Amino acid sequence: MNSPMLEIACPTTPFVDNERVSLAHGDGGRLTRTFIREHVLPAFRNDLLAPMGDSASLPKLDGPTAFTADSFVVSPLFFPGGDIGKLAVYGTVNDLAVAGARPRWMSVSLIIEEGFPIESLQRVLKSIAAASRLIGVTVAAGDTKVVPRGAADGLFISAAGIGELISPVPPGPASLEPGDELIVSGPVGRHGIAILAARENLGFVPPPESDCAPLHAAVEALRRAGIPLRCLRDATRGGVTTVLHEWAGACGKTLGIDEASIPVTADVRGACELLGLDPLNMANEGTMILAVPPGWSSKAIQALQSVAETRNAARIGEVRNRAIIPVTIRRSLGVEQPLDEPTGSPLPRIC
Amino acid sequence: MNSPMLEIACPTTPFVDNERVSLAHGDGGRLTRTFIREHVLPAFRNDLLAPMGDSASLPKLDGPTAFTADSFVVSPLFFPGGDIGKLAVYGTVNDLAVAGARPRWMSVSLIIEEGFPIESLQRVLKSIAAASRLIGVTVAAGDTKVVPRGAADGLFISAAGIGELISPVPPGPASLEPGDELIVSGPVGRHGIAILAARENLGFVPPPESDCAPLHAAVEALRRAGIPLRCLRDATRGGVTTVLHEWAGACGKTLGIDEASIPVTADVRGACELLGLDPLNMANEGTMILAVPPGWSSKAIQALQSVAETRNAARIGEVRNRAIIPVTIRRSLGVEQPLDEPTGSPLPRIC
Repeated sequence: MNSPMLEIACPTTPFVDNERVSLAHGDGGRLTRTFIREHVLPAFRNDLLAPMGDSASLPKLDGPTAFTADSFVVSPLFFPGGDIGKLAVYGTVNDLAVAGARPRWMSVSLIIEEGFPIESLQRVLKSIAAASRLIGVTVAAGDTKVVPRGAADGLFISAAGIGELISPVPPGPASLEPGDELIVSGPVGRHGIAILAARENLGFVPPPESDCAPLHAAVEALRRAGIPLRCLRDATRGGVTTVLHEWAGACGKTLGIDEASIPVTADVRGACELLGLDPLNMANEGTMILAVPPGWSSKAIQALQSVAETRNAARIGEVRNRAIIPVTIRRSLGVEQPLDEPTGSPLPRIC
Repeated sequence: MNSPMLEIACPTTPFVDNERVSLAHGDGGRLTRTFIREHVLPAFRNDLLAPMGDSASLPKLDGPTAFTADSFVVSPLFFPGGDIGKLAVYGTVNDLAVAGARPRWMSVSLIIEEGFPIESLQRVLKSIAAASRLIGVTVAAGDTKVVPRGAADGLFISAAGIGELISPVPPGPASLEPGDELIVSGPVGRHGIAILAARENLGFVPPPESDCAPLHAAVEALRRAGIPLRCLRDATRGGVTTVLHEWAGACGKTLGIDEASIPVTADVRGACELLGLDPLNMANEGTMILAVPPGWSSKAIQALQSVAETRNAARIGEVRNRAIIPVTIRRSLGVEQPLDEPTGSPLPRIC
């Protein structure tokens, strides 16, 4: 471009090579189209994306629909047990699954920093493609933006998801009643500790792995087993503690859990003791809390244990009439204490 | 938090005040919930968002659905004629409208840089709320992430949109036939020039205004007038030139336009002449190209001119049998030339 614009808008010469993403890849002209055709679309070959139109046409759904949206800004992008792409798919799928919906379509919007290695982008896109194929979710829409060096940190992904709500839809935490039983679908705190250890090079051997996994099959197993579900929630940012506090707030009852019954892996327990953290406050990305009516926990746990991702599910407590404290925990020594909600976590960018 | 974590993960003391967004606002605990309740939700009061659940339940739709996704990284966030919030809503609405869908629901995901002024965030959220109310689109899902200072530039917004496809759905650019007429819905290049002038402080008086506007009413007017539409496309990144090249590629015909017939405002013309730019390559955010069968352009233009946003619509050219050149332009002096597609635009972060 022999125009004065080059000097005004591009202080440095635009940098286009085959190894790094450049600003020109995101500016909408031929390079953008070629870039998307060559580097983005091949990962997701499907009839909805192929026309590269402004919107995808989805077939008619028989019933009501669930709609969810999330952004992913995790650092590092690749961590033991997952990466930002897998996280974006499973995070979206899990939000739909715990709402009682079967995941069907999702969108993937990329915000890429100029200079980001194309090889890393390919790894992330392949990871999105593999995860979405595994679930049977179609990536039906997307967008690619490139921002100048320093205006973003590598890669951010925003995703939205659409699912079919399957009857009966869990009524939600306002429906919780005294005697309802609380279940966790697996060991807690794994994602938070994996990210912390990877980002801060804590040197644990072997490195703790994230629990990053889809929960749709577990919810389907509960449904097939005919378990009447009050509510489900994947315990992401803020961990189990935050879910319990949200539920206690929604139902106006007290939720009591028993520390000894909560599954925690040895590496998470060790890291938390060393760092003075509570595994209950650490993020999960493939672990949910659920509540069932009195007497249903054994059947629910049996159904969960039939699915690989939730084979370590356990009953952790119950709902009671409201006492002064919204969430209590019986510590391993037998004393019952308030379980305080962290006001803010000291660990940014976990998802 | 009296834990070693504070030193490991937060090199600076977490900074929570009432004027700036802090990392703790995005970490999922009580502060996040309070922040979203106090600062984000009030802008969007509606039944779908109120439960703050993982997904929103949308009512059943009668027909097939359109689904679109976009990220917005525009700089500056506020510009003459709009801001990133209005852009996010209208950008999403327009992608649905040109696909032949009535916009119904959207999601809004925020990626906020630590230290971003809460007052600016409020302005953006109010702008999203006002724009979505004007269109009748419900913000049904959303997400808020905060990244450390320097990991993003102020604020990025990702949006997804869901609309009802209205029969007959325009068949798309592959259906273009020789003799089809090409129409632009208004003056071209206004958004690109407005952003360029604002970002680079070019000092034009008055400052050029973006065309940032919704196109759903214009598409509805065309539908009501019974215009048989081949295809429509909002001419965003890459401008009119990029749309024409995409269409020429899709149909294998030649698209010829006439420079004298293309509406350009005086300020855009002046700025482009000064800077050596072509208004046809500059981005629009409320201007579309459409194609109608032979003989239909007058009626289509009449319908467009009945809507405020597209009152300056004009016929700009036609589809011909394929010649060597995919897109041609008859310049004002009468000579027909190839209209080359810019490989990359020199102006990043326009949307």
